[in-house]
Amino acid sequence: LLLGRVAVLGTGLIGGSIGLGLRAGGAADEVRGFDPDSGAARAAHARAAIDVVATELGEAVSGASFVVLCLPVDRIADACRELAAHVEVGTVVTDVGSAKVEVVAQGERWLGGRFVGGHPMAGSERHGIEGADGRLFEDAWWILTPTAQTQARAYARVAELAHALGAKPVAVAPEVHDALVARLSHVPQLAASALVDLALAAGDRQSLLGLAGPGFRDVTRIAASRPELWVAIIRANRAAVAEALKALGGRLDHVSDMIARGSWIELREFLARARAARLELFAKPGQAGDPITLSMLVPDRPGVLAEVTTAAGELGANIEDLRIVHSTEGGRGRVELVIAGKEAAELLVAALLGKGYHPERVGE
Amino acid sequence: LLLGRVAVLGTGLIGGSIGLGLRAGGAADEVRGFDPDSGAARAAHARAAIDVVATELGEAVSGASFVVLCLPVDRIADACRELAAHVEVGTVVTDVGSAKVEVVAQGERWLGGRFVGGHPMAGSERHGIEGADGRLFEDAWWILTPTAQTQARAYARVAELAHALGAKPVAVAPEVHDALVARLSHVPQLAASALVDLALAAGDRQSLLGLAGPGFRDVTRIAASRPELWVAIIRANRAAVAEALKALGGRLDHVSDMIARGSWIELREFLARARAARLELFAKPGQAGDPITLSMLVPDRPGVLAEVTTAAGELGANIEDLRIVHSTEGGRGRVELVIAGKEAAELLVAALLGKGYHPERVGE
Repeated sequence: LLLGRVAVLGTGLIGGSIGLGLRAGGAADEVRGFDPDSGAARAAHARAAIDVVATELGEAVSGASFVVLCLPVDRIADACRELAAHVEVGTVVTDVGSAKVEVVAQGERWLGGRFVGGHPMAGSERHGIEGADGRLFEDAWWILTPTAQTQARAYARVAELAHALGAKPVAVAPEVHDALVARLSHVPQLAASALVDLALAAGDRQSLLGLAGPGFRDVTRIAASRPELWVAIIRANRAAVAEALKALGGRLDHVSDMIARGSWIELREFLARARAARLELFAKPGQAGDPITLSMLVPDRPGVLAEVTTAAGELGANIEDLRIVHSTEGGRGRVELVIAGKEAAELLVAALLGKGYHPERVGE
Repeated sequence: LLLGRVAVLGTGLIGGSIGLGLRAGGAADEVRGFDPDSGAARAAHARAAIDVVATELGEAVSGASFVVLCLPVDRIADACRELAAHVEVGTVVTDVGSAKVEVVAQGERWLGGRFVGGHPMAGSERHGIEGADGRLFEDAWWILTPTAQTQARAYARVAELAHALGAKPVAVAPEVHDALVARLSHVPQLAASALVDLALAAGDRQSLLGLAGPGFRDVTRIAASRPELWVAIIRANRAAVAEALKALGGRLDHVSDMIARGSWIELREFLARARAARLELFAKPGQAGDPITLSMLVPDRPGVLAEVTTAAGELGANIEDLRIVHSTEGGRGRVELVIAGKEAAELLVAALLGKGYHPERVGE
């Protein structure tokens, strides 16, 4: 078959999802799984994510034509060194780590041009084989980070892996990848934690944090992520994260300076530029019209949301996004819906008015 | 009646909502409205938010026993100066501005102890009389900022206004208020814009921004707010914002330093402390159990959300929060639901499995 015998090293969320997807699509002759935690490998086998449980790394990769490293990002370099003694010359090796410069350097050091760095942009908030899903990568970007050393044949096979899982492979230099994820993911993560820390220092937790509104909740939502995961990610990408943190600090200094100088026009331009970019990010390519945001107060009880979403479904209006903002002590809440297209939004407003709601378009 | 004749100066979202709430509750003898934009006052009258349209500020407050300043925060000081020549000795004056130190200083300068600063924590993302709602303040905190000069009688009447609108008045010193909102609202707003700006500089917009995930979208959602509104808010609270920006910069420097030193244990502790605080913020007081987050893949088409929310409604499970994460090119998406209470969540999982979905609990 397409990929021959595949070894998946690390059978958690990502490795398990790759195994499930390959087995469902019939893209591999066999999926052999290994995990340093043997219980995790057995659980992956029980979920039918792998055909065979290997008890050692060497056993897993013996005879494999394709090796996918799904270990935590800080263990990939060691695994590459170990693999060098085991994999055959024609075997292609890739990884799914969230930082690439160091990983690719180590992969190429030990495995040469048959190592191709990769990073599927999916599923990172889930955890363990329990969260694995063979369709996790469908329609997702799968970043590949070839270098001058990369064998064309190896690149093509890794791209085939991504395609086999329904993902869209895209090639980016390792340095560009790391700078990108530092700015789009790692530094926002650190900033969210820093903003929570800043709020904590504002005074009495009990009363003060009760005043945090929906905006604060949005900005800091990801601060609830698992610290050990993020330490490993940031450690693996420390150079790019340090650079991006410095760049963020520079922007905040610039804003401070505008405020100190009373340069309100300049501040307004800064906010307007960010706003325009954020609204662009928000739009999905190929959607059925501009996003229209509707907002309304609703009673905070079971069944209300169903009434709203059923009305949308009956009209054929696809809800692009939905947000619930509760009052701090329950009783009532505000629902914000994003509908694609003005026409669909207007029909929905009429239907909701008929049901006694008072949706209003939120001006952007 | 309770509040006598009330003058509402500025008949937009907040002023209109106050008028609607007072008229619905019968808490005022008459609500007289004035807006520098006479069309806005007429629109408020057409929506029955005010009894009488005044064409001048003096006419609005003549004979009023209570004046509520709902003008943009940068116009409140001027309005206080103008009011001094018009309001009677016993008239109580309050405002709803989002920064308090300067406003209270100006209010007391021109009106003495009958001026009481206020800031209802509701509705700030809406705009204009179209968004006004007499129940906007129900269950919301209404911050009052009395000082040593404040007349006890005036404070009591402003608290009555908050109560009459269903809000919960809470007293905070003006300096504490400003530091709080700087940290819980104004600096998060600036940080969100700075993070978008940072991402923009990472390279080619088209391809790079397509890689922004749901975490980035959450963190930067509020960067889509209206710049002119935020310039006025930040300008009014510039001292506290400058201090909080400096404190945020200090935290980011501290994180940079941990990364440079390779102090991963310290970084983990920093993230863990923020995580614990964020999860605390997340819980609503008095809710029916711990929040359980469920996540599942769904087809990206009309009607799917209705099926999910109807299942929850039928079980009596209240959806505390709901998030839709689309794949970047449509087709499929991920829905995350937050349900209060383990038992309700388990029943819902069973019901959704029965409908062909595969919800899984997201480990926190």
